[in-house]
Amino acid sequence: MVSGCGEERVMRRTMVMSEYSIGASSINGDGSVTFRLAAPEAQRVSVSGDFISAADGTAFGGGEMVRNGDGVWEYTTLPLASELYTYSFNVDGVRICDPTNGHISRNVSTLSSELIIGGGRGDYYRVNDVPHGTVRSCWYHSDSYGCDRRMMVYTPPGYESGGRYPVLYLLHGAGNDEGSWLELGRVEEIVDNMIARGECRPMIVVMPNGNAFKQAADISAAEGTALKWSDRKPLNPMLEVSFAEVVDYVDGTFRTVDGKRGRAIAGLSMGGGQTSIISYSLPDTFDYVGLFSAAVGAVTDEQNDAKIKAQRDNGLKLYWIACGTEDFLYDGNRQYMSYLDSIGFPYVYCESDGGHIWRNWRIYLSEFAPMLFRK
Amino acid sequence: MVSGCGEERVMRRTMVMSEYSIGASSINGDGSVTFRLAAPEAQRVSVSGDFISAADGTAFGGGEMVRNGDGVWEYTTLPLASELYTYSFNVDGVRICDPTNGHISRNVSTLSSELIIGGGRGDYYRVNDVPHGTVRSCWYHSDSYGCDRRMMVYTPPGYESGGRYPVLYLLHGAGNDEGSWLELGRVEEIVDNMIARGECRPMIVVMPNGNAFKQAADISAAEGTALKWSDRKPLNPMLEVSFAEVVDYVDGTFRTVDGKRGRAIAGLSMGGGQTSIISYSLPDTFDYVGLFSAAVGAVTDEQNDAKIKAQRDNGLKLYWIACGTEDFLYDGNRQYMSYLDSIGFPYVYCESDGGHIWRNWRIYLSEFAPMLFRK
Repeated sequence: MVSGCGEERVMRRTMVMSEYSIGASSINGDGSVTFRLAAPEAQRVSVSGDFISAADGTAFGGGEMVRNGDGVWEYTTLPLASELYTYSFNVDGVRICDPTNGHISRNVSTLSSELIIGGGRGDYYRVNDVPHGTVRSCWYHSDSYGCDRRMMVYTPPGYESGGRYPVLYLLHGAGNDEGSWLELGRVEEIVDNMIARGECRPMIVVMPNGNAFKQAADISAAEGTALKWSDRKPLNPMLEVSFAEVVDYVDGTFRTVDGKRGRAIAGLSMGGGQTSIISYSLPDTFDYVGLFSAAVGAVTDEQNDAKIKAQRDNGLKLYWIACGTEDFLYDGNRQYMSYLDSIGFPYVYCESDGGHIWRNWRIYLSEFAPMLFRK
Repeated sequence: MVSGCGEERVMRRTMVMSEYSIGASSINGDGSVTFRLAAPEAQRVSVSGDFISAADGTAFGGGEMVRNGDGVWEYTTLPLASELYTYSFNVDGVRICDPTNGHISRNVSTLSSELIIGGGRGDYYRVNDVPHGTVRSCWYHSDSYGCDRRMMVYTPPGYESGGRYPVLYLLHGAGNDEGSWLELGRVEEIVDNMIARGECRPMIVVMPNGNAFKQAADISAAEGTALKWSDRKPLNPMLEVSFAEVVDYVDGTFRTVDGKRGRAIAGLSMGGGQTSIISYSLPDTFDYVGLFSAAVGAVTDEQNDAKIKAQRDNGLKLYWIACGTEDFLYDGNRQYMSYLDSIGFPYVYCESDGGHIWRNWRIYLSEFAPMLFRK
């Protein structure tokens, strides 16, 4: 089954589109953005960001800024759809964040400035006046890796009052960490807003660190950034064991709905590949599986083939695959689905435009979450 | 009573001082830092940071970087004491963070790059291989302000296993927010490390937002940065009421030690002034009070004078005042202490060097925490 993906959602109470400033830059009444950077002594300044491909369909790129009389460089985009966009400036060959905008995010080791254009999908990524969940940064002990590891856990509004809640396990991509789904994926905002609108069930969202050789994000780990590559432990051989530890910790720490009907797992890129492996390696654990731009391909290994067939026979409620047509993993996903077709494994495929970027993963989460824990 | 403050603490298991890189820059074997920025097209590049005053006693300032043959600009500091330092570059008149360093912090709306020199006090600000507490970002309803507000809460290692814990309420300065003590103050790292070393008692640390007119940090509030100044609600008139709400929420949500013997309150700058007001306005609530570079001065108001005398008569275990000799609030603190002397209010004064900067507030927290909840 193939469904469309990424249709514009508009929140019932949309933001009034009006001019306002993001530091020195401004979002204009028509949804265009005028970027400004004071740099009187600079020779050449440009702006780059993921807004450019969104506006006019060209590849991710940059625009030369024009210096006005005051030494302020300016660039105005086309009108942009409601979204969260990231951008940076380039001043005489040096890539920089907007020094007047405190809203920043880190993707792997690259920092970018952020802005949200409201009035549509972007409103899902804002903090709105709705009941808010709680986000925990907590550590659990991993016997398989012999260290404490950090995970982020979202519990929905009302969790503190009692009751049991289903759990979505959400895995990040290579180079990301346990904080990425919150920072770049806006999980807290998306789930808060969707619960408030009745669009998804209240759920716990667990975001572990998917890099087996790390305790936590570089920024939060004892090994820091000084970890030697040679210290890395292999990832995949231990994935089933280490992920069972995660599930055990979560079930032992939070008031969860027991059993597979109360568990979903999804991941992006590397985390999508892990989602495939974990969901067929831990049978009867997850009723909902989501592969977002997943690192998957043709299945040729006999053992894995047998496990996936067992997953098929065992049955689950949703196996959902999403990929963008410009994604470098598009062909791999096609091959993976051909394999699933060949063994009669039921799944739902959601194809979007765009490539391997966080905008798509926020959209996929917004499409996936409403389908969970409905029965 | 006057005590020295800021003596060098050295962790038992210190980091081996060795050369390692922070992005393109490097920390050298002697504790000096060589900053590097690739900017072949730039005309002039400098580096600025709080390390400069630490190294040679000069005022916070910057150093001109020198361009080498590859278009990489360099600057090497004097050997620096073990600390957490913040820095930024200036490229042709534009202040930027280090584009090769993912470690960044936001102070009010200014972003800076961070580095830690280990081997001493700086090790307190690192994540080390010790048991870790949990940090929650959670929202409570404020009846006095008519909105949900966000706070950050640290619970110590072992909290999940049961028991009751005392609470330190930690207030930020003007322009900061509920995230600042974690991000700039390294509360999680300091308390984790001090508990592990047996230097402070396991405690809960509560970090509310002290700006009465805000739900939360700009970055996390529904009103965003678009809040009009005219929407501000007055702070001080409601402080006692609104802070009692905070205490009630915490006592109702976490397993706290009941009564004043289980509560401490401390704050920096504006938060230090609030600490003074809250602690005398809510009698029998706090046995431990800390004023860090507090916004205080002579006490001339009769009502406040009466409340402070009542606080004195009521008794408390520790009233601790810390200030740096270069702090612009130094004279105000002197006036406040003259008043306390005049009414025979017992306190401990801790004088450090340096000014109104986060380095001092991290040190003050490290000095204050061991004195709490000992009896």
